[in-house]
Amino acid sequence: MKLLSGQRPTGIETDPERRRFLTLGAALGASALAGDTARAAESYPPTDAPWSQMLGPGVVDKPYGEPSEFVKDVIRRNVPWLTATPESSVSFTPLQNQTGIITPNGLFFERYHAGRANVDPAQHKLMIHGLVERPIILSMQDIQRFPSLSRIHFIECPANGGMEWRAAQLNSLQFTHGMVSCAEWTGVKLSTLLEEVGLKKEAKWALVEGADAAHLARSLPVEKLLDDCIVAYGQNGEALRPEQGFPVRLIVPGWQGNVNIKWLRRIQIGDQPWFTREETSKYTELMADGSVRGFTWLIYAKSVITFPCPEKPLKEPGIYEIRGLAWSGKGKIKAVDISTDGGVTWERAQLEQPVLSKALTRFTLEWRWDGKPALLQSRAVDETGFVQPTIAQLRAARGVNGVYNNNSIQTWQVKPDGSVFDVQLA
Amino acid sequence: MKLLSGQRPTGIETDPERRRFLTLGAALGASALAGDTARAAESYPPTDAPWSQMLGPGVVDKPYGEPSEFVKDVIRRNVPWLTATPESSVSFTPLQNQTGIITPNGLFFERYHAGRANVDPAQHKLMIHGLVERPIILSMQDIQRFPSLSRIHFIECPANGGMEWRAAQLNSLQFTHGMVSCAEWTGVKLSTLLEEVGLKKEAKWALVEGADAAHLARSLPVEKLLDDCIVAYGQNGEALRPEQGFPVRLIVPGWQGNVNIKWLRRIQIGDQPWFTREETSKYTELMADGSVRGFTWLIYAKSVITFPCPEKPLKEPGIYEIRGLAWSGKGKIKAVDISTDGGVTWERAQLEQPVLSKALTRFTLEWRWDGKPALLQSRAVDETGFVQPTIAQLRAARGVNGVYNNNSIQTWQVKPDGSVFDVQLA
Repeated sequence: MKLLSGQRPTGIETDPERRRFLTLGAALGASALAGDTARAAESYPPTDAPWSQMLGPGVVDKPYGEPSEFVKDVIRRNVPWLTATPESSVSFTPLQNQTGIITPNGLFFERYHAGRANVDPAQHKLMIHGLVERPIILSMQDIQRFPSLSRIHFIECPANGGMEWRAAQLNSLQFTHGMVSCAEWTGVKLSTLLEEVGLKKEAKWALVEGADAAHLARSLPVEKLLDDCIVAYGQNGEALRPEQGFPVRLIVPGWQGNVNIKWLRRIQIGDQPWFTREETSKYTELMADGSVRGFTWLIYAKSVITFPCPEKPLKEPGIYEIRGLAWSGKGKIKAVDISTDGGVTWERAQLEQPVLSKALTRFTLEWRWDGKPALLQSRAVDETGFVQPTIAQLRAARGVNGVYNNNSIQTWQVKPDGSVFDVQLA
Repeated sequence: MKLLSGQRPTGIETDPERRRFLTLGAALGASALAGDTARAAESYPPTDAPWSQMLGPGVVDKPYGEPSEFVKDVIRRNVPWLTATPESSVSFTPLQNQTGIITPNGLFFERYHAGRANVDPAQHKLMIHGLVERPIILSMQDIQRFPSLSRIHFIECPANGGMEWRAAQLNSLQFTHGMVSCAEWTGVKLSTLLEEVGLKKEAKWALVEGADAAHLARSLPVEKLLDDCIVAYGQNGEALRPEQGFPVRLIVPGWQGNVNIKWLRRIQIGDQPWFTREETSKYTELMADGSVRGFTWLIYAKSVITFPCPEKPLKEPGIYEIRGLAWSGKGKIKAVDISTDGGVTWERAQLEQPVLSKALTRFTLEWRWDGKPALLQSRAVDETGFVQPTIAQLRAARGVNGVYNNNSIQTWQVKPDGSVFDVQLA
């Protein structure tokens, strides 16, 4: 019946005003605690913990470190039935365990069209050609010599949440929202390279292409390339990971993941879009009336509560901190509102610093759970004023045929036993 | 003779104004390039790259990712003669390869007093007691339930640069400066926990103690604990790494690494410092006159050029981007100045966003190297106006007996062949 297992070594009375987070625990389990904590105090710190008695390994055994063996279940996971093969699939990042806005490189979500290419940086080249004055082929050494910049940006696959268009209930934060991650990217501004080659007057579009066996290619408007795109070789302070396109990828801040071409080998400048396979049969949205939406690159404001969630239920009634992540491809998050009654009433959450443009933003809100059923929702607003919609609003606008660009409000149902379920409200 | 290996698929004339970074390369090697690039253009993209022809591994083989095999030499390294045993030693982070302000968890520098403790989070507890109204013992579940916050902060061992007091020349950025790293830490504000236990009026100092076999313990003033200290369980979006004190450590922003107690098990509140071993025989500075400086916690403004450096020499004369990192325990970096003539003249560098308090800050400056000998220096100024000193100034003030708190300006000597050496100016 204890709310928290915190043990008090003395029998001093509780002070509900000051000790809000432990008050209920003390109230519920005070008598049981008294004996435990007196004994605990006498024997603390414990003398028998092996890690307090013997030397651990020294500095030479792990020149590149790994997580503790005690968190080995915090891993990327995939849904085997989602795609035909694991080489054309995704793995989801464990957002239920993500503590900040940075996704560690080992847990950054994966999306492949032909598996994880293993590219030799000494052989890899990037060609920029087409409607340019001075086409060029750059080695990795060349690319790294140009003026550099670093930016913290999220990347999201537009299929994140795609399984839920037809009301699939996944009972997992990792699987409903785990195709978004965030890192500090370092590289060259693409505008610097385009200045180097000199765009011709007719330049309007660019084909960006990867070196993997899928030769994944997308058309992007030159305006976006000149605005904030990065030819990136660094990820969270080290070389790009193979999963993220080592040795070089395109970062298209705030735009859907598949245009952030990995293993970037070619940028061809043209005057119209290419209508590649990945922007005709794929990454388009079939509307209810049979028409198709294409070139839907922008990630609109979105958020999700990461605690509580199906993987992280509540224990007993009491005070908790609701935690979550919000992001927008249009800029900074301005506000996040939280509802515990399925959207009837809303309360403003606190945003964690730093709030960066096109980056994950943490939010928190203190909440006293009374033990009754609750419907938790978060609703992000970005600096342009865009408000995250409900799934009903999205379905009314786009039907249920698509799998892309579901940025709707997520509802977590809390049951009296504290368990949490993925539900969709009518 | 080429400056860059960038190949131009056409013979179009160079435009020195626009193509600054490649101009010299074209000028020096233009005739040789013409033939190469024409052939290169015809055969690009290459059809024989194995990664462009076959499927790579799918999403299931690396549930926790690793760096590319092509960067396996980017690792932490140690200096075997530096300490008696590897269990009481340090490993240095490869700053020469760090691309941003975030240090990836696998490369975060290590410092142990009794090796890397392997602590079971289900058994670990934190006790807060002494001059408090309501002493408490908290489990990891308890700690994680309190209101959380995330902050990006550096940690530096005060012995970083310690080998150079007596003019040791290490010819390695990794070994001169590699005991500093930076991460996004997530946890509970220590002030929240201290509010929970209620400090008594006499409370002035705290003993903070680790659960490793060294029981590393330091005395800290309560003011600092209430200001910005964090009881942290998250590091760059995941659980703390074992090297950093899994499951919980103290973050004392801007103060030397050893007070950021790892495997934190106990905080005892008192009214005077404890004068533990690590603040009497260790982590003190023997001055030239035989007196001893103690409790020198604060990390003063410091910076270093990470490119070029001994591990990353220049290739040929031409335009380069000088890159580096700056940090201050007193707040934000306000400016970094760069000299290429050993401190005679200075030019202001560009600071990369975000500039965060008590965090690594990237700086860059474009530099045309004429192929002559050069002496590169960076000098940080923080928001309090503190200016990073020279090693001569530090020696004049403190002598050469100490090994701690060397925040002096680093000088890299560039030789005509582009190689870079660690030197100290008189």
